[in-house]
Amino acid sequence: MGTQRLEAFSDGVIAIIITIMVLELRPPHEADMQALRPLLPVFLSYVLSFVYLGIYWNNHHHMLHVTRRVDGGILWANLHLLFWLSLVPFATAWIGENHYASVPMALYGAVLLMAAIAYTILQAAIIRRQGPDSILERAVGRDLKGKLSPVLYLVAIVASFVRPWIAGAIYVFVARTWLAPDRRIERTVELKGSAQAEADGAGAGE
Amino acid sequence: MGTQRLEAFSDGVIAIIITIMVLELRPPHEADMQALRPLLPVFLSYVLSFVYLGIYWNNHHHMLHVTRRVDGGILWANLHLLFWLSLVPFATAWIGENHYASVPMALYGAVLLMAAIAYTILQAAIIRRQGPDSILERAVGRDLKGKLSPVLYLVAIVASFVRPWIAGAIYVFVARTWLAPDRRIERTVELKGSAQAEADGAGAGE
Amino acid sequence: MGTQRLEAFSDGVIAIIITIMVLELRPPHEADMQALRPLLPVFLSYVLSFVYLGIYWNNHHHMLHVTRRVDGGILWANLHLLFWLSLVPFATAWIGENHYASVPMALYGAVLLMAAIAYTILQAAIIRRQGPDSILERAVGRDLKGKLSPVLYLVAIVASFVRPWIAGAIYVFVARTWLAPDRRIERTVELKGSAQAEADGAGAGE
Amino acid sequence: MGTQRLEAFSDGVIAIIITIMVLELRPPHEADMQALRPLLPVFLSYVLSFVYLGIYWNNHHHMLHVTRRVDGGILWANLHLLFWLSLVPFATAWIGENHYASVPMALYGAVLLMAAIAYTILQAAIIRRQGPDSILERAVGRDLKGKLSPVLYLVAIVASFVRPWIAGAIYVFVARTWLAPDRRIERTVELKGSAQAEADGAGAGE
Repeated sequence: MGTQRLEAFSDGVIAIIITIMVLELRPPHEADMQALRPLLPVFLSYVLSFVYLGIYWNNHHHMLHVTRRVDGGILWANLHLLFWLSLVPFATAWIGENHYASVPMALYGAVLLMAAIAYTILQAAIIRRQGPDSILERAVGRDLKGKLSPVLYLVAIVASFVRPWIAGAIYVFVARTWLAPDRRIERTVELKGSAQAEADGAGAGE
Repeated sequence: MGTQRLEAFSDGVIAIIITIMVLELRPPHEADMQALRPLLPVFLSYVLSFVYLGIYWNNHHHMLHVTRRVDGGILWANLHLLFWLSLVPFATAWIGENHYASVPMALYGAVLLMAAIAYTILQAAIIRRQGPDSILERAVGRDLKGKLSPVLYLVAIVASFVRPWIAGAIYVFVARTWLAPDRRIERTVELKGSAQAEADGAGAGE
Repeated sequence: MGTQRLEAFSDGVIAIIITIMVLELRPPHEADMQALRPLLPVFLSYVLSFVYLGIYWNNHHHMLHVTRRVDGGILWANLHLLFWLSLVPFATAWIGENHYASVPMALYGAVLLMAAIAYTILQAAIIRRQGPDSILERAVGRDLKGKLSPVLYLVAIVASFVRPWIAGAIYVFVARTWLAPDRRIERTVELKGSAQAEADGAGAGE
Repeated sequence: MGTQRLEAFSDGVIAIIITIMVLELRPPHEADMQALRPLLPVFLSYVLSFVYLGIYWNNHHHMLHVTRRVDGGILWANLHLLFWLSLVPFATAWIGENHYASVPMALYGAVLLMAAIAYTILQAAIIRRQGPDSILERAVGRDLKGKLSPVLYLVAIVASFVRPWIAGAIYVFVARTWLAPDRRIERTVELKGSAQAEADGAGAGE
């Protein structure tokens, strides 16, 4: 099977998750500047989660770009990733409403951690399916960033109980390092050059 | 008509149904571990329904993969399936909020039963349209799993009124048996081999 | 410009509208049969609106199937149709909550009337764009059903203030006559035969 | 990478944003005409925002139509635009609930201003990527309308604190001037003629 429907479904779910989060930003009943102030933490956590979901969508996009075929295992690995992403709005609302308290901050980190693990599983499933000459494997390489992020989330979860703002700083830092899209894939695709491009063109309609 | 828009529309509806369910998971006002405990039954029923919707999306994906053309009847059979799936969030919220009480558990089973029947009708409509040499018919074969599930749902509905947890166990069990994607279709497609693959390629752009 | 993005966007909006309506079906706090009874009018109006949106999606699907190119005017005519459809959940919730009272029933009819007019405008914009040899024009023909529906909605709006159930009966009746998909288009496409099919294939990738 | 998934994702997000706004239009508990009157400002602000989002979708559609390839920078510029558009429902709900008071009207203008800036950034990113022979650059030309709109939004923000209705009039006026789709792109595409059309056809499958 081709990747088209998996991409379309993932796009749909991520688009809805992103947009659902904004529902937490309820318009205040008063009409003055002051009324907006209590919304600030909700707004900031929305921005953070928007960026994280944007990162996932971007990397998902890049990863599927070098994927030709999917099977049942990949479909479920993808649904597993979407499951954890679907909990982001809940965690976001909780940290926003409680002004970054310890337990909500730790839960937020736990959701990010599980999503990161699910992404790694999906990546491994695609590489396994692609076999020894996997273009994704070559693109990902040693995947330092991918291996470090879960460790940082773990540190943040522990830090939440000491100083929640340290956890927040870590979440912002990790997001920052991922903001640059996965250049490795773009570069690998370019290296493979025109021969691959032709194969891509032939396979694109599937 | 090709299947592209039917797939896109179904993807959209299923993506929204899945994501709407997570809205039931309202962030508690307190920021401690205890506050999460009452959410546990809501969370578990969300997981169960997420898996069911994932199964439907997966099987729908496989089924449409071996479908070339749709007509008005198939479009309505598909909308009929989406209708019953759209009631899953309601049933899920009800069982979650009432800690798996008898009547909600029975209703949950009734929605699953109707969705299963709707899926069978859709499958039959596609097979009828494909005619005597239907690749879907060959893939589905005797369709033991598809015939047994509605029976199990019926048993669960009755069991709900005796011991609701038996119904719950049956729902989990049926989901478990379906978690493996419809290998029959993947296998049949492979058997039909390269000749079919070429025909697929020619028809894919439609 | 091709029709692909217009279709994708319309699919998205209609999918969300359909699914948003089900949010009105709030799970009762009690867990017995009785608790479901007050939901019956909400459920029935959901079924009616689901069918109407299904009809619009179906006919939209058929109409765009014989459309090759869109321009700015068609994009706006389509957005205009989606605007009126987006008010269906509001009207549906109102009639459901007020047990089919006069004013809500009339408003429901007004929304259906405006959507029908918007559909006719969209159809006319596509026919105009297709020029003298319009396949859509030939398919639609005298369009008796399309011309009669607005009249029936008008009758229903007036009837709402006398006997709301008459309005309800008219809405069900009109939906019933449209349930059969627009065979005219399927038939015309078949008549045009293989020559057109080839042209379709060539144009489909755009 | 091709533009297909970026288009699909943007379509999804904009479709959901548009439809989420209608949730603010809550059905009144009473069933008479009077009960609808308090909804009028909410309805009018919904219409205005629907039109604005329609304009963005339309222009986005036109812009991507003359875009062949996207890179990581363009993906993020697009997400940045979607972020500001995702705040439109919040601003819309706030002006609707507070009958167009000063601060909400200014905030509405600020969201429109940021969205306009984000759109300009996205446009510039695509033009930069297309290089010296950019078809989008030629289509956009001096982009008078694109440069004037942010200035008008700024004027409206200031005017909100003096006479909120002046801000409202400016928002309506700007929307009015954009209602006509970006003819420049349609015209430029036509001028480039059949040679480009062939190139388009070849690139469309990517």
